[in-house]
Amino acid sequence: MTASFADRLLQAVRDKAAPAAVALDPVLDRLPAGISGESAPDRVLAFGRRVIEAVALIVPVVKINIAYFEVLGPTGVRVYHDLIADASRKGLIVIGDVKRGDVGHTAELYAQAHLGGGGDLGSKAGLPDAITVSGYFGRDGVAPFIEIARPEGRGIFVLVRTSNPSAAEIQDVEARDGKKLHEHVAACVARWAADSDTIGRCGYSAVGAVVATRDAADAARLRDAMPRSIFLVPGYGAQGGRAEDFRPYFKPDGTGAIVAAGRSIIFAHERPEYRDRFDDDWQACIAHACKEFVADLRRVIPQP
Amino acid sequence: MTASFADRLLQAVRDKAAPAAVALDPVLDRLPAGISGESAPDRVLAFGRRVIEAVALIVPVVKINIAYFEVLGPTGVRVYHDLIADASRKGLIVIGDVKRGDVGHTAELYAQAHLGGGGDLGSKAGLPDAITVSGYFGRDGVAPFIEIARPEGRGIFVLVRTSNPSAAEIQDVEARDGKKLHEHVAACVARWAADSDTIGRCGYSAVGAVVATRDAADAARLRDAMPRSIFLVPGYGAQGGRAEDFRPYFKPDGTGAIVAAGRSIIFAHERPEYRDRFDDDWQACIAHACKEFVADLRRVIPQP
Repeated sequence: MTASFADRLLQAVRDKAAPAAVALDPVLDRLPAGISGESAPDRVLAFGRRVIEAVALIVPVVKINIAYFEVLGPTGVRVYHDLIADASRKGLIVIGDVKRGDVGHTAELYAQAHLGGGGDLGSKAGLPDAITVSGYFGRDGVAPFIEIARPEGRGIFVLVRTSNPSAAEIQDVEARDGKKLHEHVAACVARWAADSDTIGRCGYSAVGAVVATRDAADAARLRDAMPRSIFLVPGYGAQGGRAEDFRPYFKPDGTGAIVAAGRSIIFAHERPEYRDRFDDDWQACIAHACKEFVADLRRVIPQP
Repeated sequence: MTASFADRLLQAVRDKAAPAAVALDPVLDRLPAGISGESAPDRVLAFGRRVIEAVALIVPVVKINIAYFEVLGPTGVRVYHDLIADASRKGLIVIGDVKRGDVGHTAELYAQAHLGGGGDLGSKAGLPDAITVSGYFGRDGVAPFIEIARPEGRGIFVLVRTSNPSAAEIQDVEARDGKKLHEHVAACVARWAADSDTIGRCGYSAVGAVVATRDAADAARLRDAMPRSIFLVPGYGAQGGRAEDFRPYFKPDGTGAIVAAGRSIIFAHERPEYRDRFDDDWQACIAHACKEFVADLRRVIPQP
């Protein structure tokens, strides 16, 4: 029997002793000197592979945002899948940050494309273990993703609260019952995650949530509201967060969240103090920044 | 100077005397017999081209949902762009129904990918005139799309209210001020569309809205709430709607909305009465269904 997504994820976190993800979001004009390739997608592929190599023994998870690949055209989309296959081969859990969502039948196609292995990919090797999805369509826009993900030990993270400055404009609209809109989305997620079919032996569901409020009280409230969901929490490092800021997303036992760091890791070579120390070896800069990230989390988050 | 998106769209509607879009959402196992091609993407491309041929003189707009192409893999994404190029060459306005959205910097990449012509597409020919985008992130998730779309006479349609059964679960959450959540999204859209830079000579903005409530009072309220926005309204035909149901989305002068029909047009060959009449010529079935769709709208919606 296939292990559930939550069990696989929790085991991976335990194996590396780090509830951490590296966000592999390559920006062409920030790639280190010495990355060669005939085309932009080639260079991004070469860079991505070496980032994966540098972090694979340190973190359990990589998150790959497809926007950084769609901007390279259809060949970029293929590179997205190639990097997923590469990360999976190295034993990483991969989250495809695709933020897809649509009405019922169309959501099914997206689910097939991103979790089911449709099309000309040839195999399921290039598919992520989980993807991020929009909750705006309600249950029938999310159910197709769960149905395709669950039997294969894959999962989803529903967008509940994002970290951008204007997120509040919609997500914090106050409802008649005094709750914010994102708390209503959270209540939906909690219902979907309470379906026993989605729940692993660890007690968590394959239905997780993207939660990135910068307000500790909001984070704690959301932690209580979605007891079965693992949170994917971006924003460590470049977006300003330190380990302390992420404590409220976790349960007291240290389970319940994965913290993601992106630019502060994959562009670590841009920091002069690292470059000097590692003699311009940019892969060593990445590995070092990644170890610091994990050590900072370990300092604050109990080992599950 | 590039004409604004709204002016181009309104002119196209006037030229065809039809506020109508055909949704080109090909489903592999519903393609007519006789569509050949070596691979699934090849067959979809062949089918799509002939649908465009059949409808190009009848409607001003085609809407293409990228989910139907992503499910075919990266080659499918290329076919999506190929069909856009084909439809544009035939003088159609093309709406890419991609429902993208993300936080600021990443939204910029999606905007570049889908409206700006990034990557290996080689030219801007394969880019749609407008795309659908998520409003859940608030202003900074939408602004990058507007910034890239506007100077080139392109546009966006922000998801306000979708037609699926569980849309109400989130979109109709009642806010403290008595308004539903989707009316808050509508108020944001109205603000973004009030920016004079986005407004064409016709008075409409490049910032439109996807509105598909099945409630006439809601539709009329949304029409009032977003005076500068052209509505993209799916659901004619297969989803049960007839022309009368779409009247409230329009202003009294017949401007303000584009009604989209999909399966009832592109799979018209499945209806025995059409097949008999057109002697199994599936392109003729499509053209006929498309003419009936347009005639039905003309019966009810004033010519702008």
